[in-house]
Amino acid sequence: MPVVKSTLPEPARQVVGEALQQTLVDLLGLSLIGKQAHWNIVGPRFRSIHLQLDEVVSTARTYADTVAERAAALGVSPDGRPETVAASFGLQGPKDGWLRDTEVVRLLVEALEATVGGLRERIAVTEKADPVTQDLLIGLTAELEKQYWMFQAEDWPRDN
Amino acid sequence: MPVVKSTLPEPARQVVGEALQQTLVDLLGLSLIGKQAHWNIVGPRFRSIHLQLDEVVSTARTYADTVAERAAALGVSPDGRPETVAASFGLQGPKDGWLRDTEVVRLLVEALEATVGGLRERIAVTEKADPVTQDLLIGLTAELEKQYWMFQAEDWPRDN
Amino acid sequence: MPVVKSTLPEPARQVVGEALQQTLVDLLGLSLIGKQAHWNIVGPRFRSIHLQLDEVVSTARTYADTVAERAAALGVSPDGRPETVAASFGLQGPKDGWLRDTEVVRLLVEALEATVGGLRERIAVTEKADPVTQDLLIGLTAELEKQYWMFQAEDWPRDN
Amino acid sequence: MPVVKSTLPEPARQVVGEALQQTLVDLLGLSLIGKQAHWNIVGPRFRSIHLQLDEVVSTARTYADTVAERAAALGVSPDGRPETVAASFGLQGPKDGWLRDTEVVRLLVEALEATVGGLRERIAVTEKADPVTQDLLIGLTAELEKQYWMFQAEDWPRDN
Amino acid sequence: MPVVKSTLPEPARQVVGEALQQTLVDLLGLSLIGKQAHWNIVGPRFRSIHLQLDEVVSTARTYADTVAERAAALGVSPDGRPETVAASFGLQGPKDGWLRDTEVVRLLVEALEATVGGLRERIAVTEKADPVTQDLLIGLTAELEKQYWMFQAEDWPRDN
Amino acid sequence: MPVVKSTLPEPARQVVGEALQQTLVDLLGLSLIGKQAHWNIVGPRFRSIHLQLDEVVSTARTYADTVAERAAALGVSPDGRPETVAASFGLQGPKDGWLRDTEVVRLLVEALEATVGGLRERIAVTEKADPVTQDLLIGLTAELEKQYWMFQAEDWPRDN
Amino acid sequence: MPVVKSTLPEPARQVVGEALQQTLVDLLGLSLIGKQAHWNIVGPRFRSIHLQLDEVVSTARTYADTVAERAAALGVSPDGRPETVAASFGLQGPKDGWLRDTEVVRLLVEALEATVGGLRERIAVTEKADPVTQDLLIGLTAELEKQYWMFQAEDWPRDN
Amino acid sequence: MPVVKSTLPEPARQVVGEALQQTLVDLLGLSLIGKQAHWNIVGPRFRSIHLQLDEVVSTARTYADTVAERAAALGVSPDGRPETVAASFGLQGPKDGWLRDTEVVRLLVEALEATVGGLRERIAVTEKADPVTQDLLIGLTAELEKQYWMFQAEDWPRDN
Amino acid sequence: MPVVKSTLPEPARQVVGEALQQTLVDLLGLSLIGKQAHWNIVGPRFRSIHLQLDEVVSTARTYADTVAERAAALGVSPDGRPETVAASFGLQGPKDGWLRDTEVVRLLVEALEATVGGLRERIAVTEKADPVTQDLLIGLTAELEKQYWMFQAEDWPRDN
Amino acid sequence: MPVVKSTLPEPARQVVGEALQQTLVDLLGLSLIGKQAHWNIVGPRFRSIHLQLDEVVSTARTYADTVAERAAALGVSPDGRPETVAASFGLQGPKDGWLRDTEVVRLLVEALEATVGGLRERIAVTEKADPVTQDLLIGLTAELEKQYWMFQAEDWPRDN
Amino acid sequence: MPVVKSTLPEPARQVVGEALQQTLVDLLGLSLIGKQAHWNIVGPRFRSIHLQLDEVVSTARTYADTVAERAAALGVSPDGRPETVAASFGLQGPKDGWLRDTEVVRLLVEALEATVGGLRERIAVTEKADPVTQDLLIGLTAELEKQYWMFQAEDWPRDN
Amino acid sequence: MPVVKSTLPEPARQVVGEALQQTLVDLLGLSLIGKQAHWNIVGPRFRSIHLQLDEVVSTARTYADTVAERAAALGVSPDGRPETVAASFGLQGPKDGWLRDTEVVRLLVEALEATVGGLRERIAVTEKADPVTQDLLIGLTAELEKQYWMFQAEDWPRDN
Repeated sequence: MPVVKSTLPEPARQVVGEALQQTLVDLLGLSLIGKQAHWNIVGPRFRSIHLQLDEVVSTARTYADTVAERAAALGVSPDGRPETVAASFGLQGPKDGWLRDTEVVRLLVEALEATVGGLRERIAVTEKADPVTQDLLIGLTAELEKQYWMFQAEDWPRDN
Repeated sequence: MPVVKSTLPEPARQVVGEALQQTLVDLLGLSLIGKQAHWNIVGPRFRSIHLQLDEVVSTARTYADTVAERAAALGVSPDGRPETVAASFGLQGPKDGWLRDTEVVRLLVEALEATVGGLRERIAVTEKADPVTQDLLIGLTAELEKQYWMFQAEDWPRDN
Repeated sequence: MPVVKSTLPEPARQVVGEALQQTLVDLLGLSLIGKQAHWNIVGPRFRSIHLQLDEVVSTARTYADTVAERAAALGVSPDGRPETVAASFGLQGPKDGWLRDTEVVRLLVEALEATVGGLRERIAVTEKADPVTQDLLIGLTAELEKQYWMFQAEDWPRDN
Repeated sequence: MPVVKSTLPEPARQVVGEALQQTLVDLLGLSLIGKQAHWNIVGPRFRSIHLQLDEVVSTARTYADTVAERAAALGVSPDGRPETVAASFGLQGPKDGWLRDTEVVRLLVEALEATVGGLRERIAVTEKADPVTQDLLIGLTAELEKQYWMFQAEDWPRDN
Repeated sequence: MPVVKSTLPEPARQVVGEALQQTLVDLLGLSLIGKQAHWNIVGPRFRSIHLQLDEVVSTARTYADTVAERAAALGVSPDGRPETVAASFGLQGPKDGWLRDTEVVRLLVEALEATVGGLRERIAVTEKADPVTQDLLIGLTAELEKQYWMFQAEDWPRDN
Repeated sequence: MPVVKSTLPEPARQVVGEALQQTLVDLLGLSLIGKQAHWNIVGPRFRSIHLQLDEVVSTARTYADTVAERAAALGVSPDGRPETVAASFGLQGPKDGWLRDTEVVRLLVEALEATVGGLRERIAVTEKADPVTQDLLIGLTAELEKQYWMFQAEDWPRDN
Repeated sequence: MPVVKSTLPEPARQVVGEALQQTLVDLLGLSLIGKQAHWNIVGPRFRSIHLQLDEVVSTARTYADTVAERAAALGVSPDGRPETVAASFGLQGPKDGWLRDTEVVRLLVEALEATVGGLRERIAVTEKADPVTQDLLIGLTAELEKQYWMFQAEDWPRDN
Repeated sequence: MPVVKSTLPEPARQVVGEALQQTLVDLLGLSLIGKQAHWNIVGPRFRSIHLQLDEVVSTARTYADTVAERAAALGVSPDGRPETVAASFGLQGPKDGWLRDTEVVRLLVEALEATVGGLRERIAVTEKADPVTQDLLIGLTAELEKQYWMFQAEDWPRDN
Repeated sequence: MPVVKSTLPEPARQVVGEALQQTLVDLLGLSLIGKQAHWNIVGPRFRSIHLQLDEVVSTARTYADTVAERAAALGVSPDGRPETVAASFGLQGPKDGWLRDTEVVRLLVEALEATVGGLRERIAVTEKADPVTQDLLIGLTAELEKQYWMFQAEDWPRDN
Repeated sequence: MPVVKSTLPEPARQVVGEALQQTLVDLLGLSLIGKQAHWNIVGPRFRSIHLQLDEVVSTARTYADTVAERAAALGVSPDGRPETVAASFGLQGPKDGWLRDTEVVRLLVEALEATVGGLRERIAVTEKADPVTQDLLIGLTAELEKQYWMFQAEDWPRDN
Repeated sequence: MPVVKSTLPEPARQVVGEALQQTLVDLLGLSLIGKQAHWNIVGPRFRSIHLQLDEVVSTARTYADTVAERAAALGVSPDGRPETVAASFGLQGPKDGWLRDTEVVRLLVEALEATVGGLRERIAVTEKADPVTQDLLIGLTAELEKQYWMFQAEDWPRDN
Repeated sequence: MPVVKSTLPEPARQVVGEALQQTLVDLLGLSLIGKQAHWNIVGPRFRSIHLQLDEVVSTARTYADTVAERAAALGVSPDGRPETVAASFGLQGPKDGWLRDTEVVRLLVEALEATVGGLRERIAVTEKADPVTQDLLIGLTAELEKQYWMFQAEDWPRDN
């Protein structure tokens, strides 16, 4: 008898469990690099971006909790331990030390683009397996695509 | 010319910078394993400990921000990236999967004991170097020792 | 001319109306047995479960209102009268008198499992008929599956 | 040894227990028919009465909780299960389907008149048996008589 | 290189962009005619409808913002300028001058019916193109259909 | 030496003092008849007008306080004692006993028209004498003219 | 058929109606003379007593509303018109013009003593007639006796 | 002339004064032993009971203030000095040092039973002497009997 | 008999009515172009100006409501329908598509300058006709001139 | 081209600019001496006046900000630097060291009288030059004259 | 094995434990005599001092909780039972019965002076033993020295 | 006998008194130049720095109050009069007239560096004399060093 019985049949449970576990790692990683940029940013846009980064971190933390509890609710033990985050998080993080504001804006554009890319795939994958989880991922994608637009809007005009 | 000029003379800045950097890693690690236990706990005390863990996480996150910004204020770039946390965090975290409530209580007692031990050393080290930073570490220690007591009180009677 | 004109074509209106009516009865019934357990529970976990039950009742009441008003919005008169609830509510409720905390936890696990089972079927049925109603049922299912996990986590280790 | 020891001597406990149990059923029934009317009302006074009904429901729910916990506090297990409400609730509820606003006003006048009638008897009965319970019933009667006046004021001029 | 890069492939971006642009115009128009009625209504139901109209306007304004920012997030520049609203808004607005309360109720029933009709089509169209946008339109439709029901309920009995 | 020295020269002080004293009596009288109607109203618009009357009373009470303290601030002792209000208040109040909702609407239209008429004269009179007091009377007139419009809008269509 | 039907038999209704009507006049009168003193007080205790008087006025206004609505709820039309207050209010009010703080304290002691005296009689009279009304008068007496003590405490040492 | 004149005749004043003084001591004592248990409790129910004890302390403190001010309002000087509390408080308090959670639950059941016992006698005694004070004691008894039930419910199953 | 009777004589009513109607159109237009810029702005000052624009829109919406209700209060039916706004709004709005932050700042400076210019004329015109309306326009001008300064301060140094 | 373009013609701008600059200095000076008295007051009215002084300081600070931003809004750079305040502030401040409460009351009466005197002149001067600024000064005068009354009321009876 | 393991070495634990235990008794005693004075004070400063005493009580209660939990956190069981407070509290409390306001002020000056005297010694003693506890005592001393100043300021001029 | 008796011995009182007095002047000066810059700043970072300056002013004002009341609490009369601030404030303030945003950032970096420099010396000086005051200065330094970092971060890259 499992510790937490799932309301999903086994194959669906596995598909959804993987989607949620990878999303959890993405969000914990995003919250850590968001804070890293929040602390290390310098430049004339310091205050404006410093505050905006805390909105990204807040979104990431809130959804990380929702995502992990959704996994638990489906009988899948979530894994957000430091070593797991470091090992599974695939985004390019900021370099060591102080960061120019222009670098930070570019960094966030890239991090959000990659995160949304992964989420779009998981929305497709979970549609049949579990529309409840899909709905959660859709809501998260809406939030992150909004941030993605705002950092792009900050990043204009561009050279490359 | 440094990016952020310090109000401390160089040797003091270095001592304090190391104390803050190690504290930052401890707190980010503690917030991650606190959440891990929050999500994976099972047993008759589920609800009670599940809620208490969020208080630990909240304390850890709030102080992580204060500690990192204190480092920046002294001209020391803080490092809280995923790979740094995983590499520098020395505490024994929870094992993979679901966790019995009694295990969680024991885990927190040990994690808090170790964290406070490190802080007590840094309080001694920063006394001369920077009383402003020492005051911050004192406030943090008071919070964590209170949590340490409460998890010990939950952990009674004990067998070993 | 109908009292309230529907934005759905007739067959869809009927399918969705039945799904909403049965969900309404489930939620009103759940709110009544949740309160019954809230008042009659005894045992060392009294306070913890007593409080958690009020969260279930609060969720059930809030969604009952949303579900009934959704039915009305589709031109379907909702029926939540005492005699209808008693006649249509299929879940096994608590026995008369005081209830041990362990019994209450088990009772909620079973009630939530059955309720979610019905909702999963209605999510499938309403997908084509009315995605707006489906979205409402998805949100409700997410809430109840979270409660289902938490009562299961309380109910560990298990004997049968 | 009883599960919950009463502070009242046995005959008083029985008198008060019956008064509270019947009041509990009245209030749960009133909350259900109040919501039924809230959802099904139509007519030019829709919004005004729709909102007023939620005040009745809110009063009924809050006092149902207080009444049931008062019974428990006196060592009497309260019974608010669906089948009990349906079986013991004596008020004439609304008919099936949409309800004209004038019908709803008349229905509430009658339901409140009957409920207050029962409460007035229980106030007399509990005076000697338990002034603490009597005080609770007095407070509830004040609230319901206020609602009774307001629905009568809405119901003017009258034909029968 | 576009100013704001889209996470959608080009054909989907175009379909979704048109759906959002038309919804934006509908909502801005609805907020203007809702206010127009709010200011010009007369009759015995003045206060009740005057207040209800502000709920419609509040919903329309909040969603207009969400819809426009969703378009921007997909790399589509939204257009809500006065001349665009006047040119593209297809609903029949109120006539010049004071408005009887019964006229206002009828006007809102018609405006909401037409708006929901358009939204239902866009929900179908965006399902494949972008489930994130579809989810937004579903949420908006739920709100407007609730208002649609409430104004119909006010509009009873009817003559035509 | 006066108890409270005025910042106005004597003739201005007298003009302004009379304007404020009469306004005080008007507002205290209005608050009393507003409450009288709030308690005694009956008819199908009971709830709607009952609530609106409390807004009139609230405005009247708040401004009565401001007006009286303004008089004191100019060294003029304000007089709001029961016998003064009864003797100086010139508006036609409601008759004894229950009041039909249509009567109440008409009563308020007349009371507000008369009150605003007096205020308009005092705005003219205080312009030179004390622009600070005039500004207060202008603000009060704006509030009461808004109420005047709203009760007129309720009072449509009219027969006489 | 009466406009508002009473839940009390006729003789009780009459006794209680008179008790409530006289209490209403007392409270409206008290609120007017409390404000009069609030505006006209001078002396070294100005600020302290000025603020305390607003607490008396606030209590008087809140209970006046409750008392009048209680009368209405019993089918007794309450009368709080200016001329009624002036004619029926028996307390000695403040003299015209500025008032020394010591005078104000004495005035309130006397006004509260007289008001409480009347209430004590009505508590006795309503005990059998209507315990619901009695409970309301008991609550009001508790509030006013508290104010009575506080003004007496301010009024020490005394000379006469 | 007394410092604070009583609204009660002398014999009643004395009876009520004694009832209030003993209740004051009971509540101050209860607040002290409730805090003692709050600080010294250990065992697996630590958090749950630790929080519940603060609700008892909060009730005891709030009512101690009300009771003492009621005595003052009747011209009876209340005595809540440390030596008086120690001398007059008759309940068995907790032993020195850490306390097992099961002991704490039992201790509170006994303390509340004894306190309610005394209150029940004083409710009888004050009925004729002062219904205002009786009402206060009734309200307090309701609160403490609710706590009494909740600690009994925690204390099940029992051995003795 | 007019629907809403004016407190102003006819010529004044006409002058003030025109001033309010034109102000209403200006504010609705300003709120629409403010939102247009809020959604379409790009550039390094994106976040800062994006947020500031919402303050302009909020001011414009709040005053539009006040202005329209002021017109109604004077017996003048306000007209804020989409076609009226498009036809009567004289300001140069933003071009289609994305907008550079520097363009947006310039656009707002110009829009606010023109709006304030119109208001200054209407303040002069309404002084005699209706000081109550004049006071409203003065308050609005103060708000918009503050925004005008802030956008000018953002727009420095300037080239033309 | 000026940094901030004024909406006023040059002579008016100069008149208004001087009025605002002097008011700014008065308010900053008043806030400093208000705090000085707040900190140094001794005597039996310590607490009462200590609190009242913070209301004066709060008013002075809030209006100083409004006044300075009004100047900026008119293209006049405001000057509130320490040396300017010290040089231009004409009021007699408190002497060095502790201050008797009676002295403080007298000091405030004089400071407020002088401040209001200056404001009354500037209200006259700005009437034609800028009614928007005049309205601001009128609002400020109303606040300060209220404080002036209250300190005079505290200062009674007087000897000189 | 101790129930709660200390993070301090044994001699330090003992020193700090005694300092905290004596501070706990001081604060509980201060809260009791503060309330005693709050209830029994009479005289022209009644309201002002009555309110100020509640601030002292609130500070004392809040810090008593913090101090006791700090002791527990260091493995020292705190003792705040009635008999302990009565036996260990060394301050001179108020006499029996009503208290003149001047007496109360003097009493508080003395009680606060003595309490602060003890705290100053414990700040010195705990500096080496536990800087975390020292920091807590420093914060408490700041609060009580502020109250000490304010009661001294009330107590001027003095005779002895 | 001093007006306010100190808890410090005389030499310590003098040392601490001077430290607090100089800190008070620094903070009042900082609050005035912070507001000066808040009002006069122009340039593309206007809004961002304008808002950040208000945080500096808020910190300066709050701590000025705490510092002055700490001086009073030690029997040292604080001096914050305009002439004292102007005479003792040593920081270079802003020049007359409008200020470029880059100048403002530089100005704040320099002002904060100088202020913190003074505070660091006073932290050393007060360590033995009064740890309570030292703790206050440590808390203030932490706040200002945080602001110092943030303005430096805004001021990058730098040329000199």
